[in-house]
Formats: sequence, C-alpha cells, structure tokens
Amino acid sequence: MTYGVAIKVNDGLVFASDSRSNAGVDHVSVYSKMHVFTPRPEGPVFVLLTAGNLATSQAVVNQLQRDLDDPDCEVRLDRVQHLFDAAQYVGDISRRVQDRYADALKCSGAEVAATFILGGQLPGQNPDVYMIYAEGNYISASAETPYLQIGETKYGKPILDRIVTPATALEDAARCALVSLDSTTRSNISVGPPFELAIYRRDEQRIGHYLNLGLQSPLYVTIGKRWNEGLRRAFERLPRFDWE
Amino acid sequence: MTYGVAIKVNDGLVFASDSRSNAGVDHVSVYSKMHVFTPRPEGPVFVLLTAGNLATSQAVVNQLQRDLDDPDCEVRLDRVQHLFDAAQYVGDISRRVQDRYADALKCSGAEVAATFILGGQLPGQNPDVYMIYAEGNYISASAETPYLQIGETKYGKPILDRIVTPATALEDAARCALVSLDSTTRSNISVGPPFELAIYRRDEQRIGHYLNLGLQSPLYVTIGKRWNEGLRRAFERLPRFDWE
Repeated sequence: MTYGVAIKVNDGLVFASDSRSNAGVDHVSVYSKMHVFTPRPEGPVFVLLTAGNLATSQAVVNQLQRDLDDPDCEVRLDRVQHLFDAAQYVGDISRRVQDRYADALKCSGAEVAATFILGGQLPGQNPDVYMIYAEGNYISASAETPYLQIGETKYGKPILDRIVTPATALEDAARCALVSLDSTTRSNISVGPPFELAIYRRDEQRIGHYLNLGLQSPLYVTIGKRWNEGLRRAFERLPRFDWE
Repeated sequence: MTYGVAIKVNDGLVFASDSRSNAGVDHVSVYSKMHVFTPRPEGPVFVLLTAGNLATSQAVVNQLQRDLDDPDCEVRLDRVQHLFDAAQYVGDISRRVQDRYADALKCSGAEVAATFILGGQLPGQNPDVYMIYAEGNYISASAETPYLQIGETKYGKPILDRIVTPATALEDAARCALVSLDSTTRSNISVGPPFELAIYRRDEQRIGHYLNLGLQSPLYVTIGKRWNEGLRRAFERLPRFDWE
C-alpha cells in the first residue's frame, strides 16, 4: 500500500508521501512515490504522487519522461495549456498502461490499477492539485476540500479534516501532512519511511523545499514526540464523567 | 456503515457504538447496535455490538433472545461454560442466518454479512471481548491488542493505538472510545449519533454505566470541543522547519 496526500492552500501546495512498497509480506521494499517535473527553469512545475501497482506507476512516470524527451510529441507536460489537461494526459497514459497488462495480470490475480495525484502550476495560472482515478478520470481539490489523498487514506484523514483550510499557512499545511503520515504509519504496517515532503509556494515556479525524512531524522522524531505528548495532554484535559 | 469498538483493560470493559444505519443514501435511519444481555441478576453479563447487514444483525439478536426464552434450549447465553463458547455460539447463529438469505441476497446484489463484538464476564471468570467475523470464526483481544473494532474502523484507530494499554483506567478507556467515535463521525458520513457507551467494571456482573449521547448532549459537546482545542494546541507546538 501507500499513503500520499496533497494540500492546496492559498499560499501554495504541499505534497507528502511514504515510500514503502509491498507485494505480500515477503516483498517489502523502498520506492519513492513522489516525482517532480520541472521541464525548464521558471516554467511549469508538476509533482506527481503515485499509489497502487508499482509497475503501472513506473510505466506512467517513464512515459511522461519519454514524451518530454521527444521533440515531436504534441502532448507532453511542458506543452499543456491547463493543469487539468495534464491530469487528463496522465489519466490517458495510465489507462493505456493498465490496458496493456490487464489480461496478463488478471490471470495471475494481481491488481493492475494505480491512482495518482498531480499538482503544480503553469506560469500565469493558479496552482492546483488533481487526483486521477485508476479509470483515468480526475477531480480537483476545492476550497471546501483543500486536500486529496491516495492509497491508505483513512487513518490520516481526521487530522486533515480538523486542521486544513485554504487559509492555513503553507508550513502549517506541511506539518499537518507529516502528522497525517505519522498517524498512518503507526496504524498501518504497509505505509512506511522514508517520507518525502515537497513544499511549493505560489508563483515561485520551483519546488522551494524538499525533505526526505527517515524514522531517525531529527525533525520527524521531534514532530512525532511532540504530537504524541500534545495528544496525551489534550486527552488528559477531556471532561470527567459526572460520577468520577 | 457502522463503527463499534470494545476496549479491554485491567479494570474492566468499555463498549461504544454509533447508531447510523444506511442502505444507500436514501435509507438513512437510527438503529442501536449495542445489545446488553444480563439473563439473571449477578449472573453472566454480555454486550453485543453489531455491524454489517441490519437484517442479519437483528436476526442474530432475535435468535439469542429466542434461545434464552426457550427452557429446552441447551446452548444459550446463560448456559455457556466459557465466554469463547458464547462467541462461537453467536458465530454459529450468524452463519445460519447468512446461509438462509445468501442466495436471495446474491440475486439482489446486497451484502448479507455481519460482524460482531461480544464481550462480558461469566461469574468467577475473567472478562474478555471477542470479535466474530462474518464467517463465524472469532478472535479475542489481548494485552498487546487491548481493543477490537468493527465497521468503519480506520479513522478511529490512531487514537486507540496511542492511548490504550491494559493499564489504562476504565473511564479513560471510555473517553478514548468517545474520541475514536468522534473522529470517525467527523470523517465519515455513514457513522453518526446517537452514540452508546457501556462501561463494565470487572466482577460487578452488571453494566455500571450506560450513556446514550446525541450530538447536542453536553458531555459529547464538551469532549468534542476540548479535544479539538487540545489538538490545535498540540499542532501549534510542533517544531518549526529550519527555514521558518
């Protein structure tokens, strides 16, 4: 499994993902699920998070790069007119990859599907994030739903629901993404470190901050420890029952 | 959907459940999913939580009562020798009910399955809780896994993982169950009030405290408010990034 989350606030975008990949309990390995595309300086910025079948995810990423390297390719990340065109393009590639292997994978009982989050900004347009379903269609974040998740989404959802609004500061959104990842990791063994975090400030047209955090990295340790202490303190302050 | 949780601590048992029942978005109604059986004063105490197909759940509860009312019935809740015998008995009834309707429900595409949590204490034995799968088999809680969940389990799991151990005080375990329910309700529309809470203190052979909490009940409002404030305070105390 996987956990990936993207948050869209007024100040910009945050992307976070784990990097545990497993096929059964024997094949547990580390793969990045965050892919950054900045085809030219000060040009469009894309961050792609992947979840689901690792071969499908990699084939989609490879095709995006193959197209970028092909001067004759008409549809490629640096030639889209809108961010939603890029989402549709990723969805189309994903469908083609899945169709190619679907019959073979059906025989083996394996799941070919993959889901994606694609976010970023084209120069002069607004930043945005999209979730691309396994079927290839896609939805964007909104003011009411300022985050999108893929993979093992439920454990880390409550904290996002409580904290994130469009007015949330960019770094606060990033901290919230890390707490969401931490909660998921503690409750689900299929989600694990290192964690990748990318912070994109609106109109900068480059990823301002990228962090790769292992379980031992001081920032992650401190966040986990303080959050745990804070939760315990919050818990201790809950009201007593009337018979206590 | 449903959310039900039972916690086993050294001091006793806690049971909590929501009461929203839905078949699609049109048929949303309120049904208790907590059923208490105390067949005789100071005798065995059983609390049953249900999740899944409502007709299956009700049929199982009805059969438990039918058997209790039948003097010739050899296997009934007040005649089991061990608590795990009661879990097996509930599983057997559940299988029979599901088998009875499985073919008809398969044709309509509806899901016949139900899962249960059964907990309580027989006089002179230890209290315990069991989760009974749709297939009829069952597992107990343990010192390492002191809680069991049914239904929409993931949203409310992180707080249980952080707070509950066998040494947790009974009322603290009850507060944790309410927070777990609150988190689930905020993130998933299929889980809703009123919430039922039953607190059983070891060796008392009766349910010491039973609460039915609506969204407006002062205790639930205060818990939700304080928890939200506490989380925000915990969040504000998280470390800054080094560039902030």
